[in-house]
Amino acid sequence: MRALYWDERELTLQSAYGVPRSDPRHALIQVHLAGVCSTDLQIFNGYMGFKGVPGHEFVGSVVEGPSEFVGKRVVGEINFGCGQCDACRRDLSRHCPNRSVMGIVNADGAFADYLSVPVENLHLVSDNISDEEAVFTEPLAAAFEILTQIQLDPGDDVLVLGDGKLGNLCAQVLRLTGAKITALGKHADKLALIKKAGVRTILLNDWQAKLFDVVVEATGSPSGFELALSAVRPRGTLILKSTIAGNHQTSLAPVVINEINVIGSRCGPFSDALAALAVKQIAVTPLIEKVYSLDDGVAAMTHAARPGARKILLRPA
Amino acid sequence: MRALYWDERELTLQSAYGVPRSDPRHALIQVHLAGVCSTDLQIFNGYMGFKGVPGHEFVGSVVEGPSEFVGKRVVGEINFGCGQCDACRRDLSRHCPNRSVMGIVNADGAFADYLSVPVENLHLVSDNISDEEAVFTEPLAAAFEILTQIQLDPGDDVLVLGDGKLGNLCAQVLRLTGAKITALGKHADKLALIKKAGVRTILLNDWQAKLFDVVVEATGSPSGFELALSAVRPRGTLILKSTIAGNHQTSLAPVVINEINVIGSRCGPFSDALAALAVKQIAVTPLIEKVYSLDDGVAAMTHAARPGARKILLRPA
Repeated sequence: MRALYWDERELTLQSAYGVPRSDPRHALIQVHLAGVCSTDLQIFNGYMGFKGVPGHEFVGSVVEGPSEFVGKRVVGEINFGCGQCDACRRDLSRHCPNRSVMGIVNADGAFADYLSVPVENLHLVSDNISDEEAVFTEPLAAAFEILTQIQLDPGDDVLVLGDGKLGNLCAQVLRLTGAKITALGKHADKLALIKKAGVRTILLNDWQAKLFDVVVEATGSPSGFELALSAVRPRGTLILKSTIAGNHQTSLAPVVINEINVIGSRCGPFSDALAALAVKQIAVTPLIEKVYSLDDGVAAMTHAARPGARKILLRPA
Repeated sequence: MRALYWDERELTLQSAYGVPRSDPRHALIQVHLAGVCSTDLQIFNGYMGFKGVPGHEFVGSVVEGPSEFVGKRVVGEINFGCGQCDACRRDLSRHCPNRSVMGIVNADGAFADYLSVPVENLHLVSDNISDEEAVFTEPLAAAFEILTQIQLDPGDDVLVLGDGKLGNLCAQVLRLTGAKITALGKHADKLALIKKAGVRTILLNDWQAKLFDVVVEATGSPSGFELALSAVRPRGTLILKSTIAGNHQTSLAPVVINEINVIGSRCGPFSDALAALAVKQIAVTPLIEKVYSLDDGVAAMTHAARPGARKILLRPA
């Protein structure tokens, strides 16, 4: 099969990469669409020391596996737990210390014709969700994770920092609670997309200091944390969504002085994301910048790395 | 009156410092004992740009003020709210943006014969609490603050990082919940004090990596945060008690990846601290290293700054 392969130095298209072997606990999936995420771009900068086929956002159809799945469209959760440890027993395989992670840690991912995923990680996709929508399930679930961690009430004043793909999805998801959402970003065109979804937006150049009950940091930049801290009220909540590799200079004193609650937030519930997509509560397709064939995968990554690029998709079929 | 005065360059004993003026909303208090805190030592390094009389841990007796207070022993909360703002109206004057803070921000403190405190900040001290115990009310309240922020259950595994005064008080307070408390520190003698209060202790040299449900960072050192992060389980809680002035190198990626809840924690409820002191639930007097007269206040600060020093007290009377 074809696969994009990262050998820790270079990304190349392999035309005869081995199809994943049969594993009774896994299903073999033919990839319809795969999404390129900032984490993939970080991998090409050495993140996690990954070697293999990247890609962890996908929709596809099951070609081998349990009969109730074969021929069906699916999306898949990215953390493959060991099934044995404390975390896995508490239904927290996302935090299994021995986990592999699709296209990120010790497991080939979705930038290929086929990939192999544990059956327990699969979710069926209903007919009224298109492939172009379903491929956003993973990042949309990450936005829904926030609502499993904090309670938002209609009176709450919430700031989403960052107008990229994740900021956009977070703003749309948090808006479902009835809380007052403001999105702050650097790019007028990206903010316009968020505004179209009914969220109040502010361009960073027009920002005037104000305090919010909840701030969601989704800029993907080390400087986002400091701005976020300055915008959260005493005893307020700061949700950290950006994973910044490496050390950076910061001061945690304001966290203590203002008794801020800083909550790290990562992967989320696929079921919530699929339910929202099924009823068209979240507009995801306006986030698509371009769909590439798998054969043009290397060029697709270069495009995805352009500042300001929206979602780049790969279509193997 | 006598007062220790910090002019932003030097601390001196002033023999004829003005007694605070009468203010109908304040009480004038004769100081019996005042405690030296690490924050005082940070002030002598420029913290908060404070100029005036330091000292925010005290017990004294009211010499001028409402009749129900005059002649009574009191302790006092250190944040003086404006009484007008949102925070003050929500009973959160500790977080009033316009507040002054006793001996720290725009208000003279307790390293003097007398100090002036808003009446609403005062708490009466019951007869079965000695001055030597009551002077610990403020730091003990800061330890009790943790219990207003999180719920601890008897099965919970809790690590307190730091064997100093604050670490000691936190370990003793958290032990009241029935949770399993472990204190980790660098000093065998200080850990022995904590152990005497019934807490399990580990010397840093003997530390073997282990994960806890809750970690309390009370080391007062920038490196404490990294160690704390490495010791908290995924989705666990990290309570930040140390206020570290200035920027330092750190990585927040583990907060996101492991979905840690980092909670800043500062001043706490005096009533809880006084109730615990009244029934002798917390042993505070073993923390006293030496009591100095106010006349020897400058030498007392030098002593307090010695590595490993326990609590230094000043006795004006």
